Amino acid sequence: MNPKRYLPILQWLPGYGRSTLGSDLLAAVIVTIMLIPQSLAYAMLAGLPPEVGLYASIAPLVIYAIFGTSRTLAVGPVAVVSLMTAAAVGQIAPQGSPEYLGAALALALMSGLILTLMGVARLGFLANFLSHPVISGFITASGLIIAASQFKHLLGIEANGHSLLALVTSLAGSLGSTHLPTLVIGLGVLAFLYAARRWLKSTLVGLGVPARPADMLTKAAPILAVAVTTLASWGLGLDARGVAVVGEVPSGLPPLTLPGFDSGLWSQLFVAAVMISIVGFVESVSVGQTLAAKRRQRIDPDQELVGLGTSNIAASFTGGMPVTGGFARSVVNFDAGAETPAAGAFTAVGIAVAALVLTPLIAYLPIATLAATIIVAVLSLVDFPAIKRTWDYSRSDFAAMLATIVVTLGHGVESGIMVGVGLSLALHLYRTSRPHSAVVGRVPGTEHFRNVQRHAVETDDRLAILRVDESLYFANARYLEDTVMELASRQPGLAHIVLACQAVNVIDASALESLEAINARLKDAGVRLHLAEVKGPVMDRLKHTEFCHEMTGQVFLSTFDAWQELRGESGATLSRACGAEGLPVR
Amino acid sequence: MNPKRYLPILQWLPGYGRSTLGSDLLAAVIVTIMLIPQSLAYAMLAGLPPEVGLYASIAPLVIYAIFGTSRTLAVGPVAVVSLMTAAAVGQIAPQGSPEYLGAALALALMSGLILTLMGVARLGFLANFLSHPVISGFITASGLIIAASQFKHLLGIEANGHSLLALVTSLAGSLGSTHLPTLVIGLGVLAFLYAARRWLKSTLVGLGVPARPADMLTKAAPILAVAVTTLASWGLGLDARGVAVVGEVPSGLPPLTLPGFDSGLWSQLFVAAVMISIVGFVESVSVGQTLAAKRRQRIDPDQELVGLGTSNIAASFTGGMPVTGGFARSVVNFDAGAETPAAGAFTAVGIAVAALVLTPLIAYLPIATLAATIIVAVLSLVDFPAIKRTWDYSRSDFAAMLATIVVTLGHGVESGIMVGVGLSLALHLYRTSRPHSAVVGRVPGTEHFRNVQRHAVETDDRLAILRVDESLYFANARYLEDTVMELASRQPGLAHIVLACQAVNVIDASALESLEAINARLKDAGVRLHLAEVKGPVMDRLKHTEFCHEMTGQVFLSTFDAWQELRGESGATLSRACGAEGLPVR
Repeated sequence: MNPKRYLPILQWLPGYGRSTLGSDLLAAVIVTIMLIPQSLAYAMLAGLPPEVGLYASIAPLVIYAIFGTSRTLAVGPVAVVSLMTAAAVGQIAPQGSPEYLGAALALALMSGLILTLMGVARLGFLANFLSHPVISGFITASGLIIAASQFKHLLGIEANGHSLLALVTSLAGSLGSTHLPTLVIGLGVLAFLYAARRWLKSTLVGLGVPARPADMLTKAAPILAVAVTTLASWGLGLDARGVAVVGEVPSGLPPLTLPGFDSGLWSQLFVAAVMISIVGFVESVSVGQTLAAKRRQRIDPDQELVGLGTSNIAASFTGGMPVTGGFARSVVNFDAGAETPAAGAFTAVGIAVAALVLTPLIAYLPIATLAATIIVAVLSLVDFPAIKRTWDYSRSDFAAMLATIVVTLGHGVESGIMVGVGLSLALHLYRTSRPHSAVVGRVPGTEHFRNVQRHAVETDDRLAILRVDESLYFANARYLEDTVMELASRQPGLAHIVLACQAVNVIDASALESLEAINARLKDAGVRLHLAEVKGPVMDRLKHTEFCHEMTGQVFLSTFDAWQELRGESGATLSRACGAEGLPVR
Repeated sequence: MNPKRYLPILQWLPGYGRSTLGSDLLAAVIVTIMLIPQSLAYAMLAGLPPEVGLYASIAPLVIYAIFGTSRTLAVGPVAVVSLMTAAAVGQIAPQGSPEYLGAALALALMSGLILTLMGVARLGFLANFLSHPVISGFITASGLIIAASQFKHLLGIEANGHSLLALVTSLAGSLGSTHLPTLVIGLGVLAFLYAARRWLKSTLVGLGVPARPADMLTKAAPILAVAVTTLASWGLGLDARGVAVVGEVPSGLPPLTLPGFDSGLWSQLFVAAVMISIVGFVESVSVGQTLAAKRRQRIDPDQELVGLGTSNIAASFTGGMPVTGGFARSVVNFDAGAETPAAGAFTAVGIAVAALVLTPLIAYLPIATLAATIIVAVLSLVDFPAIKRTWDYSRSDFAAMLATIVVTLGHGVESGIMVGVGLSLALHLYRTSRPHSAVVGRVPGTEHFRNVQRHAVETDDRLAILRVDESLYFANARYLEDTVMELASRQPGLAHIVLACQAVNVIDASALESLEAINARLKDAGVRLHLAEVKGPVMDRLKHTEFCHEMTGQVFLSTFDAWQELRGESGATLSRACGAEGLPVR
């Protein structure tokens, strides 16, 4: 057992030097500035008090620095996971109740345990079953729902609903009671953030600021919006005029909390915890891998599970909420020059300082400002061109993507993910249940064999060669039977059928029974069944079976050998009997 | 639209002649004799009054003769489906209540509608997802449960339970109150039926009886047992001595019944109806296909769904229960010389006559006789050698089989099937998520390329050729990324990587993104990415993508072309650019 594998901090801490410290500190300052408004906003999105967002950005970051394998991933509350938290916890208790807070802690703990156990059991590959179109569709739909859910804060009205339709209907119904001062602040911040994202960097560069600082300043725009609107709200006494503000936030370090171990609560939250774990893991790993590749580093997905899992467990014991690696935040960390996970630990210190000294100021922060921050952030996740691109490339991928989007928008995030994964698996299985196969003939003068329908090739009336383009398993076994028997019935003078198996990696027990049935039925019809190009591992298994001894024909090393032998062109016996030594391996 | 396809009766009825009539009538007589005790016994197994079994063997057989495509399939109540009916309906109402009867009718109707709709939607392929080991394990486990459930009738005691363990425990607990006269009848019939199955045919043949009549007489042994024990029971007044008998059975043709349309009931029965439909369909189609192949006939699985579906609908409107094609019964029908489905219709007439005139006699039939009939019939379905065979051939098939058996025995038939299908799909997906791939080199002096680890082949330090042995889709896309990047990092002087795609039938949108990522990362590392042997349909799609234009390398017709070109051995340019005409097709 290699301790560096399970404690990645041992890989970088011993060689930690002054120059690395400088880079990490700078990155930490910039990420802290970005993270303060984000953590407040995502706590609000999850229906939790704002300080919970700050707490979730302290201990988890320190723990990730110890157990995580990405050098630059920035962990903390993120939009999609916060939305999923709100949806799950909202079914347990009303927002604002102690039960709601407790359920969020339990959710973080369960998700942490699930992730850690998956990591220990090396189940990181499970994330591969979320296809790219499903993830992309899910993120786009979640972005739309999140944006819609924040409009009520921009307008200063009440609106609720778990689906996009319900949200929009509810918003439309209360539009009349829009609170104008709130709307002014909200739209103002929205316009400012949008403009900053669009033009600030190029303007700054035009004014002679170098590209990187210009980029960093652009990323700091939200904290500027927070500062200005908080100041205005305090100076003008906006809360007295009906503008909703964050209100008193307790000042201090995170409390120690004990998540509830109520089995009823756990079983209610279980599915949501699994979903949050997988979605959070996929988001984290995608970001982590992209950034690692840029610097020729590698991350270990199974250890990443442990890193994220322990971070969530830490969140649950320090008054936090479910966390994962955030996309925008990690990119900023990377661009700002973070070299080791120590940057994350320094960020945690920054947030802790904010929790100690900045909280009194936050009381005057208008909620509309946070809502505008969220809307601008999540709308950048919405990717409509990807829908068009997927449609152009593959209709079945598009179907899975569309189903994910429609179900997520109409029925919520968990159902959306499940339908997307289920449909993409079903479409994949459907495809492999009708495997491609082709009758092939010899390209004249060569040892190559190609599809008779696409090429001018030599064939023989007494001999049919069927190339099977898929592993043979239960779902396509019967289809193979049908294909071979139809081939036999179409060609009356046939004496030999050769199955060319270069693409067959596995023949499972069901397919073996189908081969037995094919052999027996062909025998009755006076046709011999041969195999060619059988791979080594497949042959190793076949040679101990009854099929191999009952087979009327032979096993040939190559299709060309079969062609020569069965047409009687070759004197040498190139074929192999099942039991013989020197079986063909490939 | 071809009416013969949707009304298969039109294929054989117009040419129906006298000699066919003779064969069909003979077969019908033999099947009727076999079916009378079976239909009574399976009704009892399903917890229904005995006459329900007779009713379910009348109208469904006539309807199947019209819509079914198998010439020799004998439809009616079968053991496994009856067991599943008892398990499903038993959760709705207590046995003997009118609600129990109503629920069985509703189950037949739902199953009939599901099968018919599946047939119309051409979903027959779904049955392929039940792998042979799962079916075999399920049948074995069901056989054991059914046999165990009948022992109480042999012993004349009370015992209940849905799992094998519960049944056996319950039996053991009441063993003290065994009713001796019942036990004598039960064991006597059991011994007789076992002996008949084992030795009667050979004894008769030894006595000079020709093989076929000897076989038929053997198959008629149950009716002999029924006749003898009924006579004994009536003559000795056994019912007065505490031997349980069938009791009064209403005499007459099936009543017209209207299954309940209660939505609560339907939603409770839905899962069971789906399971019964699929299991019944798979059993029917396996038998039907085996028998059809022996006479070089074909059955159409989608039309079979319609045939079985309409039969079940007919059962639900005529006081019946869920039905399907029975294995033993169909073999007898085939062996007795049935040539068309008319034999089934004639059997229906035979059963109708029995329902009219034989029912008064059935009143004295001891239940222990029926139980013995069931036990002997289902134990012949139990196939332990298949478990050993599967273990020897494939551990993952064995795992699916074992899970099916254990869960079926321990938790019931529906869970057993679901766990088996789920596990076999999961194992299949796991396998394809780590696709086989091999670095290949040239077999000296040929155009063949083989695995460098298994063969002595030529390689080149500047060129690595990776043969990918599976379609590329979301579940294995990341694995490919890892494999290629590891290959690149292992071989420092590398300038070219060729992916040989002869086994790649599909590249889905997720795999396309992985190829884009691989290309970009190899580009950064100064390595060019090429493709070879890309199949026509795959290339057709690829050429419109961004990847194809950003790819640093080329697309080669064959691996050998890539080898020659990239080693600079060939003057001619054999490669193709993405946008060019004359793309390689295969």
